[in-house]
Amino acid sequence: MREGFVGNRINALYGIVNGTCNYILTRMKLEGADFDAVLAEAQKLGYAETPPDLDIDGWDSQHKIGILASLAHGFWVQPEKIHVEGIRHISAMDIKFAGELGYTIKLLGIVKRIADLGTNRKSQIVNHKCRVQVSVYPTLIPNSHVLASVNHVFNAVFVRGDVVGDTLFYGRGAGKDATASAVLSDLADAALDLKFGTPSRVPPFVPHECKGAVAPIAEVVSQYFVRLNVVDKPGTLAKIAAIFGQSKIGISSVIQPEGHEGASVPLIFMLHYAPNGAVTKALVKIGRLPVIKGQPVMIRVENFE
Amino acid sequence: MREGFVGNRINALYGIVNGTCNYILTRMKLEGADFDAVLAEAQKLGYAETPPDLDIDGWDSQHKIGILASLAHGFWVQPEKIHVEGIRHISAMDIKFAGELGYTIKLLGIVKRIADLGTNRKSQIVNHKCRVQVSVYPTLIPNSHVLASVNHVFNAVFVRGDVVGDTLFYGRGAGKDATASAVLSDLADAALDLKFGTPSRVPPFVPHECKGAVAPIAEVVSQYFVRLNVVDKPGTLAKIAAIFGQSKIGISSVIQPEGHEGASVPLIFMLHYAPNGAVTKALVKIGRLPVIKGQPVMIRVENFE
Repeated sequence: MREGFVGNRINALYGIVNGTCNYILTRMKLEGADFDAVLAEAQKLGYAETPPDLDIDGWDSQHKIGILASLAHGFWVQPEKIHVEGIRHISAMDIKFAGELGYTIKLLGIVKRIADLGTNRKSQIVNHKCRVQVSVYPTLIPNSHVLASVNHVFNAVFVRGDVVGDTLFYGRGAGKDATASAVLSDLADAALDLKFGTPSRVPPFVPHECKGAVAPIAEVVSQYFVRLNVVDKPGTLAKIAAIFGQSKIGISSVIQPEGHEGASVPLIFMLHYAPNGAVTKALVKIGRLPVIKGQPVMIRVENFE
Repeated sequence: MREGFVGNRINALYGIVNGTCNYILTRMKLEGADFDAVLAEAQKLGYAETPPDLDIDGWDSQHKIGILASLAHGFWVQPEKIHVEGIRHISAMDIKFAGELGYTIKLLGIVKRIADLGTNRKSQIVNHKCRVQVSVYPTLIPNSHVLASVNHVFNAVFVRGDVVGDTLFYGRGAGKDATASAVLSDLADAALDLKFGTPSRVPPFVPHECKGAVAPIAEVVSQYFVRLNVVDKPGTLAKIAAIFGQSKIGISSVIQPEGHEGASVPLIFMLHYAPNGAVTKALVKIGRLPVIKGQPVMIRVENFE
């Protein structure tokens, strides 16, 4: 980013930047296994630490995406301004339903320039001229996207520049050899900068009007996958749909998977672009309905549009 | 490669480095179309030049892979030492049969360090201590490999370092904007080198014992996909298998696809690791058999082992 993207404005950056999370999500997908079982095995194998919080709750990704955001936009992003969600709440069922819809779940770090209101309906935020979204959360991404093929402990950063277009940088995200190689290259870089007096070879960013403005997650507009556990009786769907409607949240599809028996069944909603704040509030209301069992699960969807 | 792989020996490098060829092969695969039809349309759309030889016969890839080989191994590779085959002879049938076997055909530039005889049966060459393969040819690669997902005008370079492991660099391989972005970054790099007097910031390679030794293609060991057009009568397979056997070339599988009618039928062989020279000679002999119609088609297979 410092040397190959001179003159580019970085419109979006998506990173799979934590090897432990990607290893767990990959195995959950390949084996249909549950989070706890895969985490326990990953800890036995030394791929996850004990306690595993730093990795699986997204804090390691937060640190890395903060650095990438700063490189992309030229201002230091305070960690507390980065909205972080980990992968603890992702279930085998979410991965299975996402798969049936053509999506893979990855923990993504996202740095996205948010366009002016009105110019791009799909990545707008409400009432602000220009800001940057900086966040970490599990995301449904289309199976056809190159990031969906980044598996196990591999990491990748997908960068979209306004001139260069879409690019991807891929390599191992864990392991002592890969880490040693990166450290060695950084040391050589620093030593040469000291020797030749070139502390800042290339301006690492194009100055722009978003400087310093990180959008609060509530105002960021996303698409959503929502999984509810509902009592299977007449009128349930109408009650839920009414709350989404009152909140001005559009439903793009509803899936009630077949083959589930018992008093409660899963019910999946795919939601249109809507502000995170509105969706969170609507889900609190929906969660209070007597027909809803347990907590609603909400995972954002990224179609890279 | 100059800055991120300090201290690495580049064991292998595989590049999809020509946007025109990748566009044609992608459309042939997606549409089941023939080479000539897709080329004609690519020329209409401006994705291929007239005459298209520089791209589709592999010469543009030769130039690029020569530069990458030099960066990886620290000696200038003469273009005439780079074995080049283009994609003109690839048929819709080859792409279809490769697909049924789980492979995608890509034009690959390959730079591979060839290990000592005996240490690695799979990438040996005969009778030499250490050399580098530098070549360009259409290759069957497994669908599961990340390079198989590089489609249309996108390019990618897959680099395997002995310390860093596997890495991939991906972006647009055609179009004025992506080209402008790359040129701008190169100009900035050159200007800063001039300004700060750092003409050679980092040694771009690890010196090693292969210096200057490019292996002739005849001595390079590969796996192969061979498609023959044979007269469907008893004894045909025995005659062909006898020639492979006399040449000490192992057959890993034989596929006679069903549903082909007429006097001649396609017959596919997947061949074990063998020197290119031996396979070329055996195919000349096989091509002279009266039961063979037309030229044998040979496409190398790369399993990235």
